[in-house]
Amino acid sequence: MRLAYRGAPFHGWQCQPGEVTVQSVIEAALSTVMRRDMKIVGAGRTDTGVNARMMVAHFDVDSPLTDPARLVRNLNAIVGKDIAIEEIYEVEPDKHARFDATSRTYHYYAVTSKSPFFYPLSWKAPEGLDFGKMNEAAAILLETADFTSFAKLHTDAKTNICRVTKARWERVGDDGWVFVITADRFLRNMVRAVVGTLVEVGRGKMSVSQFAEVIAKRDRCAAGTSMPGHALYLWEVTY
Amino acid sequence: MRLAYRGAPFHGWQCQPGEVTVQSVIEAALSTVMRRDMKIVGAGRTDTGVNARMMVAHFDVDSPLTDPARLVRNLNAIVGKDIAIEEIYEVEPDKHARFDATSRTYHYYAVTSKSPFFYPLSWKAPEGLDFGKMNEAAAILLETADFTSFAKLHTDAKTNICRVTKARWERVGDDGWVFVITADRFLRNMVRAVVGTLVEVGRGKMSVSQFAEVIAKRDRCAAGTSMPGHALYLWEVTY
Repeated sequence: MRLAYRGAPFHGWQCQPGEVTVQSVIEAALSTVMRRDMKIVGAGRTDTGVNARMMVAHFDVDSPLTDPARLVRNLNAIVGKDIAIEEIYEVEPDKHARFDATSRTYHYYAVTSKSPFFYPLSWKAPEGLDFGKMNEAAAILLETADFTSFAKLHTDAKTNICRVTKARWERVGDDGWVFVITADRFLRNMVRAVVGTLVEVGRGKMSVSQFAEVIAKRDRCAAGTSMPGHALYLWEVTY
Repeated sequence: MRLAYRGAPFHGWQCQPGEVTVQSVIEAALSTVMRRDMKIVGAGRTDTGVNARMMVAHFDVDSPLTDPARLVRNLNAIVGKDIAIEEIYEVEPDKHARFDATSRTYHYYAVTSKSPFFYPLSWKAPEGLDFGKMNEAAAILLETADFTSFAKLHTDAKTNICRVTKARWERVGDDGWVFVITADRFLRNMVRAVVGTLVEVGRGKMSVSQFAEVIAKRDRCAAGTSMPGHALYLWEVTY
């Protein structure tokens, strides 16, 4: 299934006891509609408050669905306004939403002016951020393999190696910017830590060469603070 | 002053005893910053929940403002996230935000797919609305002078004559439509009643010729129900 969700109402993607998560809401809806206990596997996990413009998840059924469009409608009637199930389609039995994904793209939205309409969906950037310098620093990410400096401490990730193929701030309209980052995989909290450190560069508190040193140190404490999650979007998953 | 606001948190534009309105919040902020009792006059009144992408208001001062940009910053620090004061500039003493406005444009946003991000800001249209037919009906508004059928009953408006110069549904992206309507003046509740009646046409419950008859009747009860205000935006005021 391909779906979208607003992150604010949820305690992230992954099921957790006692918390409302995107996965738990969808699994409950799917179990209701299909009249048996259903589990789904997502392409990745998003943290509390983080949005998805496009998430992909799979689930197993014993026989092909007779009417996937109807299942989409039935699920949308149950999951609430903050989740949109967009499409459900059959794939080969050995396909896996997480393991078969070849890349993920995240967007981080910043607005430079006060906006009554977009503040719940983007980050209000301070005046005078140097996006040119931020892009100089972002280019270094393309030549980086080890992202330990942007990894959350004490996770169960076996390696901190990622291959970033795009990392760039682009203009959106007159008052907006979006940081677009694509990689084969992301570590937990990685995009928000990367953006937070780039913002230090943009504020003039860190030079581009110091940004390179932060990466070389392989130490999370060297990087900038993590950015708020409400402006972050899982934008695309490719297979 | 040129400003924008999200309508949801407010009981409309105009000051009302015991209610939080856009005007009352701005007057309180202006009075705080300028250390005396200030009143503002808006280009028009928006109802509860209705947004403004661009509202214009004026206020009187005894001597020219020394630093309008600073006043903008100070006001924005007080008025909260849902109002953005965008610019304050000096005009001739006889200029009037309401009486000198030559036209107003409103936008009404409809989305045809479920969207977790845009539902607070737009109207979820049912599937299969016939926007072609709605535009045939909308064209009749350009030849209409008396809008009594779309006027709120029992208001103090002296006349229900308006000159509509644009009235058209236009596509926005893959899943959206916007109804753009420009007129020299609008009656209270008029846009929402017009859109509600056009939607009847789009649903096939009213023909284009019946739409023309509704207008000819000059009777509010003949028109369709009023649309929700959260998808309506005062978009532009021209002088």
